[in-house]
Amino acid sequence: MIVVMNQEATADQIQHVQDKLKEWGFGIHFSQGVERTILGVIGQKKPGVMESIEAMDGVEKVVPILQPFKLASREFQSATSEVQVGDVVFGGPKLVVIAGPCAVESEEQMVMTAKAVKRAGATMIRGGAFKPRTSPYAFQGLEEEGLKILKQTSIEVGIPFVTEVVNPMEVEMVAEYAPMLQVGARNMQNFTLLKEIGKLKKPVILKRGLAATIDEWLMAAEYILSEGNYQVVLCERGIRTYETATRNTLDLSAVPLAKRLSHLPIIVDPSHGTGKRFLVNPLSKAAVAAGSDGLIIEVHPDPESALSDGPQSLNFNGFETLMKEITPIIYAVGRSL
Amino acid sequence: MIVVMNQEATADQIQHVQDKLKEWGFGIHFSQGVERTILGVIGQKKPGVMESIEAMDGVEKVVPILQPFKLASREFQSATSEVQVGDVVFGGPKLVVIAGPCAVESEEQMVMTAKAVKRAGATMIRGGAFKPRTSPYAFQGLEEEGLKILKQTSIEVGIPFVTEVVNPMEVEMVAEYAPMLQVGARNMQNFTLLKEIGKLKKPVILKRGLAATIDEWLMAAEYILSEGNYQVVLCERGIRTYETATRNTLDLSAVPLAKRLSHLPIIVDPSHGTGKRFLVNPLSKAAVAAGSDGLIIEVHPDPESALSDGPQSLNFNGFETLMKEITPIIYAVGRSL
Amino acid sequence: MIVVMNQEATADQIQHVQDKLKEWGFGIHFSQGVERTILGVIGQKKPGVMESIEAMDGVEKVVPILQPFKLASREFQSATSEVQVGDVVFGGPKLVVIAGPCAVESEEQMVMTAKAVKRAGATMIRGGAFKPRTSPYAFQGLEEEGLKILKQTSIEVGIPFVTEVVNPMEVEMVAEYAPMLQVGARNMQNFTLLKEIGKLKKPVILKRGLAATIDEWLMAAEYILSEGNYQVVLCERGIRTYETATRNTLDLSAVPLAKRLSHLPIIVDPSHGTGKRFLVNPLSKAAVAAGSDGLIIEVHPDPESALSDGPQSLNFNGFETLMKEITPIIYAVGRSL
Amino acid sequence: MIVVMNQEATADQIQHVQDKLKEWGFGIHFSQGVERTILGVIGQKKPGVMESIEAMDGVEKVVPILQPFKLASREFQSATSEVQVGDVVFGGPKLVVIAGPCAVESEEQMVMTAKAVKRAGATMIRGGAFKPRTSPYAFQGLEEEGLKILKQTSIEVGIPFVTEVVNPMEVEMVAEYAPMLQVGARNMQNFTLLKEIGKLKKPVILKRGLAATIDEWLMAAEYILSEGNYQVVLCERGIRTYETATRNTLDLSAVPLAKRLSHLPIIVDPSHGTGKRFLVNPLSKAAVAAGSDGLIIEVHPDPESALSDGPQSLNFNGFETLMKEITPIIYAVGRSL
Repeated sequence: MIVVMNQEATADQIQHVQDKLKEWGFGIHFSQGVERTILGVIGQKKPGVMESIEAMDGVEKVVPILQPFKLASREFQSATSEVQVGDVVFGGPKLVVIAGPCAVESEEQMVMTAKAVKRAGATMIRGGAFKPRTSPYAFQGLEEEGLKILKQTSIEVGIPFVTEVVNPMEVEMVAEYAPMLQVGARNMQNFTLLKEIGKLKKPVILKRGLAATIDEWLMAAEYILSEGNYQVVLCERGIRTYETATRNTLDLSAVPLAKRLSHLPIIVDPSHGTGKRFLVNPLSKAAVAAGSDGLIIEVHPDPESALSDGPQSLNFNGFETLMKEITPIIYAVGRSL
Repeated sequence: MIVVMNQEATADQIQHVQDKLKEWGFGIHFSQGVERTILGVIGQKKPGVMESIEAMDGVEKVVPILQPFKLASREFQSATSEVQVGDVVFGGPKLVVIAGPCAVESEEQMVMTAKAVKRAGATMIRGGAFKPRTSPYAFQGLEEEGLKILKQTSIEVGIPFVTEVVNPMEVEMVAEYAPMLQVGARNMQNFTLLKEIGKLKKPVILKRGLAATIDEWLMAAEYILSEGNYQVVLCERGIRTYETATRNTLDLSAVPLAKRLSHLPIIVDPSHGTGKRFLVNPLSKAAVAAGSDGLIIEVHPDPESALSDGPQSLNFNGFETLMKEITPIIYAVGRSL
Repeated sequence: MIVVMNQEATADQIQHVQDKLKEWGFGIHFSQGVERTILGVIGQKKPGVMESIEAMDGVEKVVPILQPFKLASREFQSATSEVQVGDVVFGGPKLVVIAGPCAVESEEQMVMTAKAVKRAGATMIRGGAFKPRTSPYAFQGLEEEGLKILKQTSIEVGIPFVTEVVNPMEVEMVAEYAPMLQVGARNMQNFTLLKEIGKLKKPVILKRGLAATIDEWLMAAEYILSEGNYQVVLCERGIRTYETATRNTLDLSAVPLAKRLSHLPIIVDPSHGTGKRFLVNPLSKAAVAAGSDGLIIEVHPDPESALSDGPQSLNFNGFETLMKEITPIIYAVGRSL
Repeated sequence: MIVVMNQEATADQIQHVQDKLKEWGFGIHFSQGVERTILGVIGQKKPGVMESIEAMDGVEKVVPILQPFKLASREFQSATSEVQVGDVVFGGPKLVVIAGPCAVESEEQMVMTAKAVKRAGATMIRGGAFKPRTSPYAFQGLEEEGLKILKQTSIEVGIPFVTEVVNPMEVEMVAEYAPMLQVGARNMQNFTLLKEIGKLKKPVILKRGLAATIDEWLMAAEYILSEGNYQVVLCERGIRTYETATRNTLDLSAVPLAKRLSHLPIIVDPSHGTGKRFLVNPLSKAAVAAGSDGLIIEVHPDPESALSDGPQSLNFNGFETLMKEITPIIYAVGRSL
């Protein structure tokens, strides 16, 4: 941590900051520049200290030196983590492809979809039983009934599934059905939910918040890790920007960036990341080329009758085409399916 | 709702969209332009219909005509709602000023602060017992102990309080202590929490999400209203933009804009909205001038020893100065304290 | 400047950075922390040095300590600059109100508007002769003919004017007619234009770019100042954010922030800043309350027949109402008209 | 164009809008919904009409139906344009790779770089002679001397070059040296510059503005096209968002999106798009996978001594590695080098 005093800081103010730092057990490197006094602060980071100093008179700014996350960092663990769900491994040499509808609507829909996407090459399915919707009047999901359908489908078709949990009170219940949980973008900083999930020993996909920085996202992962659950997979799904031609702006630089900062596997959601069907195919390819460990793609037997996210869902043909076209790129980056 | 077909849409595709719309009970105004076919859709809005049509082949875009919120809208209720907490009325002729520390730290701190801000003109106090923090290692609040301190302080000093609730499981418990609840920016779309609060008959401040549009914010209010709780006060607290010189960008146009679209009272939080102490004073004045129904301001007896948000907290002198300087502006816009 | 080496930086890499810094004439404070080596760099800032170091192996980041602007900074000049145009003084005790149409359309329109806004209290008029338009097919202004109309109107009504210049080749010509120039948001980083204006001794309004940080804006001012023209007035006119309910997001915290960093006067444009007529009135009030030295407002005799920016233009009645309502706020912040 | 009247619009106001539309030669489809009156406007789009109507009393909003650009649109020309510079073809089956330093520093630097990047597979070089810099005190380029070096290098090494032009007064001069011009992000809406370039018959790369929407970008292209120069290549180079971990957020969805809307070729600049050397390689791969027609990459013999943009420049080894690793992806998307 570096403390920059402002130009008009008095000797007393500078002394006061130093006294406080010493009181808290820090070492100090004092550096008197031409126009500013700068204090290098040495010692273990303590929560709240940066803010306290920033609030002191005469302080212009405080510059953090270390990343705020620990357990999630590459410095803590240099090898990429592998997160396993059945036979599927996130962070290993194989690309993971998760496909399925936004919302579970019926067993027929789920089984039909699961068979189609499995045939085309997907190794995992997705489907929402609890849907966080902007409007209270929109379809909110089949809830526990949806979980039963997912489990039944999974057994019938022989493919694991991931599903979103939105309520801390339902974490245990969802975990009884699902081999992998998902925290949606809106809940990335729902710390109560994160802590509940942290208490499980269950793989979880943590989506990046709508306007979350990479640091905040890794801090959200830290909430889960710090409770003892190390099976976290990050998911980039687009951020909110001024551009309205797409639903979100898919930030693919987040893939190599998060990989550099963290050992956690990372996948990409080009469906929410773009919001438009014709963009899912090229952005899926781009995600793989950028080094993503996997994809999560919305596929629906009949997008126009989907109860949620129809405009960004592929139909079976579209998904099959995608899988065909993406295969050479998977091999071009040295991975396999 | 207006459906715009794309230039290459076939007659079959156009017919299919019309058939579906009729099937769903809508009337259609068909309009054949020079380069596009446009369908005006007439009838009661149904959830999901817009998305379904947008997913159909040949459709270029679907343009909504009506606001998505109902109970929160000025069209539903033309008079501004008044929300009452003890003697304090949000949305009436008097400006409401809420002041207090970010986090409750001790009874001494709260009583001292409550007395000071009351003396300076505040009519309500604030203080967090449950703190949603970016880092799992940061101070998370005194929890129920904090609520007891708030209640005790409130009785001793004779001033009502508002406090944040972050966990749907704790809504009832917090409501037993507090006369007014707060939903923080990170939880604006925590729909489980909103629904729980909607079941109470308790006033609530709903902060705007970090990257929420005005429409999404009013839809979040709609979640609370649609469960039967009509005592919602909106709070603008800054949005996330590319500018890093301030913690957030305080969007004061949101005040007159939300007032035009909705009957709910609206207040402004210049402390989180700017993140810097020296900006709180001028932006408080600006908020009142823009028509805000109130202010919520962080005040701490000793900002540099605050456990949270010290850099943006005023000390007692700073708050007193603010109250003195703001009074003529309150009267200039035809209100009183 | 602070250089933070990354955790894996080798002794050779650290030595190399230090050698280079010494070669460039800097002093170094070496600080070996628990997990990082940090170099405090002492000496006069040189352009390009920060980037060079950031490009070296083993360097994690370089943190600037000083503001990048000099002549524009409060440290360079502590007293607020006053910029004078005829009898009008920007940065003095009186609020400056500039009003007029987006584009000059005819002499009749300009004279009528100038008389109306002068009567209502404006002390300066505005009007565009050269219009930067998103579309090449939109009205581009009357060009030199427009300048003649502005000058004629100014003489006839007895009120100075400001007008935009968009082309470096036309700076001299525009300056022959106009007592004050304006650089629009799109041209804030048109450095060729800025340098040409810097060579004049003419007051200029420099609008903030659509997505410019405060630092970049002050650096743009620095371009003009460094050529010898010190008569620069800043103008906040809204920034681009994800919010689409307004044309731009008016960032009123920029007013006290720019005032703290710079001695240049600053005014606010609530017309472009919001894009909606009904928001101009409340945001004008807010701007004055936040400490703005002036306002620049679009007024048109008949907004619906305006050739540009009709939706955000006030008519004469709207402007008169605004001037009446804003007067008590001007006095409440200790200024006059 | 669709005109939506607000709920309280009077019969007179609705009539007035219709009268004006008829006066301007438009046909009208009148549609009386349950809560709103909607007018479908039929006829050739005229500049300014949308704004005029939006300014009328009783109008809630005006929704455009057609894209604002014409010559740049896929509807105007369905086949992708090919833009040729020497033997290099943008928009054809071969991927175009442009490489070179941010700024021309010396003939030695340019020749060395040109040889190295040509050997590694680049087909064109880049180098700035005129540099738009945020600070007036930063290196502004070698100017005409730089152009001479570029031309000399081009002849000596046998490879064409592109270079930026920043001043409308210098367009002709730069065009005498350079076979291809570039408009930088800061100048995307420097309409004077665009018009001057439009008068040439010279290929030009038009970079997307820092905060430009896809529509605004294509409108900027339209400025060049409408003057008669059809040889425009678009270049995505990252947009400004709230995320500060990267210099910009590279928006790769812009590639397939612009391709759908426009027939112009599009390339990607991962160097400015990320600002960090280690991100250039993965994002280059992603760009190609997303369908980009080419790449423009900063390469410097010794990035740490670069006078500009060192932190994002590759050295020769880094560029060679990139070219090797990217080749299988180029073939995987059905293109060649």
